Amino acid sequence: MKKIAISVGDLNGIGIQLALENHNKIKKIVEPIYCIDKEILNRVSKLLDIDIPKDFNCISKNILPLFDIKPSQVDRDSGLYSFNSFKMAVDLAKKKRVDGIVTLPIHKKAWELADIDYKGHTDALRDFFDMDAIMMLGVPQMFVALYTEHIPLRDVASKIKENRLKVFFINFYKSVKPKSTIAVLGLNPHAGDNGVLGDEEKIIQQAINSATKELIDNYKINLSFPIFSSPLVPDIAFTPNIRKKYQYFIAMYHDQGLAPLKALYFEEGINVSLNLPIVRTSVDHGTAFDIAYKGVTLNSLSYINAVKYHTI
Amino acid sequence: MKKIAISVGDLNGIGIQLALENHNKIKKIVEPIYCIDKEILNRVSKLLDIDIPKDFNCISKNILPLFDIKPSQVDRDSGLYSFNSFKMAVDLAKKKRVDGIVTLPIHKKAWELADIDYKGHTDALRDFFDMDAIMMLGVPQMFVALYTEHIPLRDVASKIKENRLKVFFINFYKSVKPKSTIAVLGLNPHAGDNGVLGDEEKIIQQAINSATKELIDNYKINLSFPIFSSPLVPDIAFTPNIRKKYQYFIAMYHDQGLAPLKALYFEEGINVSLNLPIVRTSVDHGTAFDIAYKGVTLNSLSYINAVKYHTI
Repeated sequence: MKKIAISVGDLNGIGIQLALENHNKIKKIVEPIYCIDKEILNRVSKLLDIDIPKDFNCISKNILPLFDIKPSQVDRDSGLYSFNSFKMAVDLAKKKRVDGIVTLPIHKKAWELADIDYKGHTDALRDFFDMDAIMMLGVPQMFVALYTEHIPLRDVASKIKENRLKVFFINFYKSVKPKSTIAVLGLNPHAGDNGVLGDEEKIIQQAINSATKELIDNYKINLSFPIFSSPLVPDIAFTPNIRKKYQYFIAMYHDQGLAPLKALYFEEGINVSLNLPIVRTSVDHGTAFDIAYKGVTLNSLSYINAVKYHTI
Repeated sequence: MKKIAISVGDLNGIGIQLALENHNKIKKIVEPIYCIDKEILNRVSKLLDIDIPKDFNCISKNILPLFDIKPSQVDRDSGLYSFNSFKMAVDLAKKKRVDGIVTLPIHKKAWELADIDYKGHTDALRDFFDMDAIMMLGVPQMFVALYTEHIPLRDVASKIKENRLKVFFINFYKSVKPKSTIAVLGLNPHAGDNGVLGDEEKIIQQAINSATKELIDNYKINLSFPIFSSPLVPDIAFTPNIRKKYQYFIAMYHDQGLAPLKALYFEEGINVSLNLPIVRTSVDHGTAFDIAYKGVTLNSLSYINAVKYHTI
């Protein structure tokens, strides 16, 4: 059974409730190691009125500094603790003491208050490893990787460059090694309609060809199916019949992939950081301060899926 | 009961089978007038082995020229006939002899072979009426109007102009007169995240404000709810909770609106031409030559929805 480090996120939010409530479920999937001090966990347990399961394995080393939980508040101390918990999980993975990490949600503003220079987990991972992490979101039956992420729409088309695409395609393939063809989306309406509505699809196709050649020649990949599809028509790429054919999609830009994904699977999605020495998954929701420490029953689909990904 | 003219589309395709098979259903919703000659309908009926319902009201005037049905073939004569059937339906609407029209699918290549200069129905309607038709697709619970349509993605951002948007918003409101707020989408990921990921949302917001002011001042619109939303974050605009709040969405570009729509409702969608003197609806699928005249049971959801729209 795989060992997975779980960083507990912002303790003023809902993450730790998810961890406590779902421990008995996830211990059947992986061997979890929670990056939290026993002492602060006791404080959380009292506030939530949820007992700590006996086999809830916390990392022994103090993460520190301890602080007072302030339910639903954006707080400097809680921000710092969540960052230290995350760093601990990453360290365990770096030292191969775990096989991967799951991160519970942090609060960006709390990180800012704690003078942490990163915008979020993915940003921090890029810096820790000095590598171009690939961001992928999805559910077990449909994952969407983003070729461009948080940039204005007007800048997307100029990023469609053959070499950069080729490197992305190769890195993505090597990160997931899927058992079926990877769906690559076109950029334009109707995938350009033979150049009438834009011609970036030609560049995308060239990058597909050269990535395929390189994977075969240099990496000795030998598959019974094409590694990549031709650029798909974006507005029908996520219809039921096409989804049956593909598990992994590469979107050219943020909303092209995420709007259909979230329309279909909002509550269940996870966030995966690929192309790093470690695999990190995360729930695809925030700290939900509005419902934290209020005795609300939480939807755990995203958390369970984030854990399950490590066993795919 | 409303009278609706139905143009029969490319007779080598599936449209006329849909019309014959669903006549008994749709005559309970509207009074259909089919733009087809009796003689050619007889030929179709024999080939399909479907009887012509007794009250299947065909327009008496010859549409002409008659031709031989060639199932599943792209054909000049069939292209010309489908165009003439469409023109007949438009004429009936222009003369107020019907309240609206439903068009069955034509084949663009067949129109090209018949020297018809239009790319499709919407293109022809813009020319017939010399007006800027608004293209809207959807299902009864969710319609998406497109601010920009068939243009390359790289050209979208430069079309975000306050005055053009304002005119579009006003025309759209006047065309549908919805009973709840119209959802307007932002352009950029996270709707620009306060300008960090693009600033077109400011222009969209200004256009929303000026369109609202003009509708109130000049058109005396007085509603108990805001006419338009603020620019929504595109990738969560189509999640279940947001969809509960809105029936009509305005997307800034083709795939922003249509990818989520088709992911959710591929088989049921219809195409509506708005901002014209007549209302035209259409199925949102093609001639399906691969299954035409083969005794296949057809999915009629889109056709039924196209008819129903006229009674909303």
